[in-house]
Amino acid sequence: MKVALIGMGSVGRGVAEMIAKKDLGLTITGIADSKSGLISDRGINIAKVLATKKKTGMCGDSTIPAIDVIKNADYDALIEVTPTNALSGEPATGYIKAALNRKKHVVTSNKGPVALHYKELKALAQKNGAAFRYEATVAGAIPIMHTLEHGLAGNEILALYGVLNGTCNYILNRMADEGLTYAQALMEARELGYAEADPTYDVQGIDAAIKLVILANTIWGNGVKLEDVDRTGIDLLTADALRLAEDEGCTIRLIAEACPRRNLFRVSPRIIEKSHPLVTQGTLNALTLETDMAKEITMIGRGAGSVETASAIIGDLLFIRDCYVQRA
Amino acid sequence: MKVALIGMGSVGRGVAEMIAKKDLGLTITGIADSKSGLISDRGINIAKVLATKKKTGMCGDSTIPAIDVIKNADYDALIEVTPTNALSGEPATGYIKAALNRKKHVVTSNKGPVALHYKELKALAQKNGAAFRYEATVAGAIPIMHTLEHGLAGNEILALYGVLNGTCNYILNRMADEGLTYAQALMEARELGYAEADPTYDVQGIDAAIKLVILANTIWGNGVKLEDVDRTGIDLLTADALRLAEDEGCTIRLIAEACPRRNLFRVSPRIIEKSHPLVTQGTLNALTLETDMAKEITMIGRGAGSVETASAIIGDLLFIRDCYVQRA
Repeated sequence: MKVALIGMGSVGRGVAEMIAKKDLGLTITGIADSKSGLISDRGINIAKVLATKKKTGMCGDSTIPAIDVIKNADYDALIEVTPTNALSGEPATGYIKAALNRKKHVVTSNKGPVALHYKELKALAQKNGAAFRYEATVAGAIPIMHTLEHGLAGNEILALYGVLNGTCNYILNRMADEGLTYAQALMEARELGYAEADPTYDVQGIDAAIKLVILANTIWGNGVKLEDVDRTGIDLLTADALRLAEDEGCTIRLIAEACPRRNLFRVSPRIIEKSHPLVTQGTLNALTLETDMAKEITMIGRGAGSVETASAIIGDLLFIRDCYVQRA
Repeated sequence: MKVALIGMGSVGRGVAEMIAKKDLGLTITGIADSKSGLISDRGINIAKVLATKKKTGMCGDSTIPAIDVIKNADYDALIEVTPTNALSGEPATGYIKAALNRKKHVVTSNKGPVALHYKELKALAQKNGAAFRYEATVAGAIPIMHTLEHGLAGNEILALYGVLNGTCNYILNRMADEGLTYAQALMEARELGYAEADPTYDVQGIDAAIKLVILANTIWGNGVKLEDVDRTGIDLLTADALRLAEDEGCTIRLIAEACPRRNLFRVSPRIIEKSHPLVTQGTLNALTLETDMAKEITMIGRGAGSVETASAIIGDLLFIRDCYVQRA
């Protein structure tokens, strides 16, 4: 199967490395970063491109923009892993549409397009007989979308509860374990690269809320938007609040929860028993699905990381290879 | 899609009820228990059969044995949910072979045939272009097989660790939480229906070892057999041992673990930190997969129950419907 890879940040490089390393039957015929692009119908030498990117900051020819690769390269599936813009969803949404309009399958790790334009993109994919998959957008390496689609097929999903932001989980763990203040724990998270220079998206629960929107639309197709999510961050939490919870055998987690029957879509710090499956260490993500037949199913795993995210993207690509391309 | 249901115990009735209740596009055209069978190409009235079964102990005509239903009914997929015989794998193995030889898909919850004859049954299915699926054999409602097949596709599975027997988990929880002796906790488990009159299979780790064999063969195709599993049960554990573990912030769990690189296939009571994701409450099952890309993925859920097991079986049936029958 031929793929085009758009985006050469940490995730894009992780995907490229795994495709080069593993014998998955995937050939990269187009590649682009924000400044350059490269097309080769016979397959691109990944090691060479990664070395060039490292040396020059560009993966290809500065006269070939990403959209040209998407519109002109010969590929079966587009891998769209450019940085998330949660306000406009661009340029990713335009890239995805251009590929779908060419009847190409699309795999993305980009939360913006899925959270903002779920229905439109799904409809466009269906109209063109193409797959539109986005396992990597929620909870990193945890294969939550595959589980909803196959493992729990036939179940009604009644509600979900999750720890969907690893940065907040790290900060809360450090505040509880070491008695750090929020500011101290945030500084530590920054030093370790878990928090960005501007941590607003993480600590105010926006990132978790975006993931909740993606999950809610996937499961219930209910058109929930970011502004429908009742949202409280962790940035006003005191060390005292955590200590009080700990005294009762509990702790505090930033929990994203959705239950359409109660019209509940919320991200907020919650007091939770320490023995609860959603209480995980470090930056781990966790998600519980409440269903009618399987009852509660909880999944725990890494929510971020280059190779971990590549795992989700490759899972999507192999599903497309097995269920679309090979059967076509 | 037409299905034949063989086995009308707790799991079989659960499957029948869910097929009747949910609009899944599944029609039962053949049904059998250990004493009787029924064939109707136009579809069987499930409510009526369940009522008859309740009243008479039989679901159909005593002159129609299960094998006749399997050989003569008009169906796409066989649902084989007769009781597990871990020594002979019969009569289930014969049933499964008869269906596969007719080029019918097979879904089973029966550990015997899969643990004893994995390679042979997989090969027979492949030869006949039929699916052979057994999600329900390991960890009940947790969709572990789907996760291995799709969610973690492309990953190398390096090792696995799991709590695969709910009865032992219940006993260990009660010993730790209430200071009960093994004998007291076992008696309680029996009264609640979690343990059978003869608890040997559960408490000596045989059930967990059988599940480990199924997982190892599925993941690594390595032909591991029950006798290759190093096995220690929980029946000799003392309340003192649990107390000592608790004093260190730990507890004891019956852990099934497999790591081919270390030639490790073992079921044994292990001391484990209480905050570890595999430490779950009640009868819950849990499984951690160690992989090269996604790293550790843990899944927690119900390991038994009529409707919970039906969830796994229906997930398999819908996968067959979507990926085989509708595309045929």
